[in-house]
Amino acid sequence: MRIDIITVLPQILESPLGHSILKRAQDNGLVEIVLHDLRDYSLNKHRKVDDYPFGGTAGMVMQCEPIDKAISLLKEQRQYDEIIYTSPDGETFKQATANELSLAQNLIILCGHYKGIDYRIREHLITREISIGDYVLTGGELAAAIITDAIVRLIPGAIGDEQSALSDSFQDNLLAPPIYTRPANYKGWEVPEILLSGHQAKIQEWELQQAIDRTKRLRPDLE
Amino acid sequence: MRIDIITVLPQILESPLGHSILKRAQDNGLVEIVLHDLRDYSLNKHRKVDDYPFGGTAGMVMQCEPIDKAISLLKEQRQYDEIIYTSPDGETFKQATANELSLAQNLIILCGHYKGIDYRIREHLITREISIGDYVLTGGELAAAIITDAIVRLIPGAIGDEQSALSDSFQDNLLAPPIYTRPANYKGWEVPEILLSGHQAKIQEWELQQAIDRTKRLRPDLE
Repeated sequence: MRIDIITVLPQILESPLGHSILKRAQDNGLVEIVLHDLRDYSLNKHRKVDDYPFGGTAGMVMQCEPIDKAISLLKEQRQYDEIIYTSPDGETFKQATANELSLAQNLIILCGHYKGIDYRIREHLITREISIGDYVLTGGELAAAIITDAIVRLIPGAIGDEQSALSDSFQDNLLAPPIYTRPANYKGWEVPEILLSGHQAKIQEWELQQAIDRTKRLRPDLE
Repeated sequence: MRIDIITVLPQILESPLGHSILKRAQDNGLVEIVLHDLRDYSLNKHRKVDDYPFGGTAGMVMQCEPIDKAISLLKEQRQYDEIIYTSPDGETFKQATANELSLAQNLIILCGHYKGIDYRIREHLITREISIGDYVLTGGELAAAIITDAIVRLIPGAIGDEQSALSDSFQDNLLAPPIYTRPANYKGWEVPEILLSGHQAKIQEWELQQAIDRTKRLRPDLE
């Protein structure tokens, strides 16, 4: 899998992409993540890629031409499954979206910044608009990091223990049960006895019941 | 405002916190963001902070003691408005949550990693569990970055043009209207004529109508 991320602030993404599981997945050849500085596609000697909006709204808007050039150049080199724009008005990103996108060969993620991108890019070049939640961020870079992280960890081999990904929250529309580790008694805070019993079948039954109860209580909408 | 972030991977957060608006807000004294490496609070000479879960589930669990020590030390130094744990089963983070938290004086954000933290920490020390969306991430670090970004940009002075934050999506439960910038005609893709008309009142009416139409079409649940 290859993910191309187009942004005016590639530096923001360096440390999230350069550590832990995302780094290992790249080192092991499971995914190639390429950052593109949109300013490299500016026609302007000041590397400007934004301008004032028509109509007098406040803020700056990312222009058509640099984005068009960056995306066109990538599309000449390979076929992309999706050209994603991270935007508060896109479809809401969910685990099912991550599952689906983790099967793609090539993805482009365009990060909005400032007031957003010229709407014509969204009409003509973007194939999918994704929102990671109902809140406004400084820019689309962290949204791109979130989408990349959620997708890459699903690629077989990306996280050590595949069992671990299958037992995550959301994969079965259930929240995870409570988990505990040593010591069994910390300052008088005790681990539920059943977990220390060694009865594997009873433990699994308890965990499933806890997952169902917690989902019902905290996220009844997931059922 | 002060935000303390406790994590096993402080490096992941370096570049998101070290650029653009988050950097400027810190440089200008609007917010102090302090990263704490949980391993500094390990009792173990290998700086270990996790152990196997009771009951035989796959994955590793973050232990009580280092987290308790880190949080207790901070609480001795100042009063915290909230001690937040980023978790898929927390309340869903929304713009209203960001608005509310942007008024806080001191916040702790604890990032989960591996399979999560020992549940006793959640029962005894965490005051608020927040999920940034219904998807699973490698760890809570990016979630902490998202929450921090969404909060800090709301602090007066953090983004240059205050008008700009007020006209964001979600602040009035409306998606933003389409925006355009120069050139008015790019490869035959044209900007709506009204925006070039100079009639300020008509433009505002058009923008409001577009915002209403887009919200109805794309996010009927926001109304």
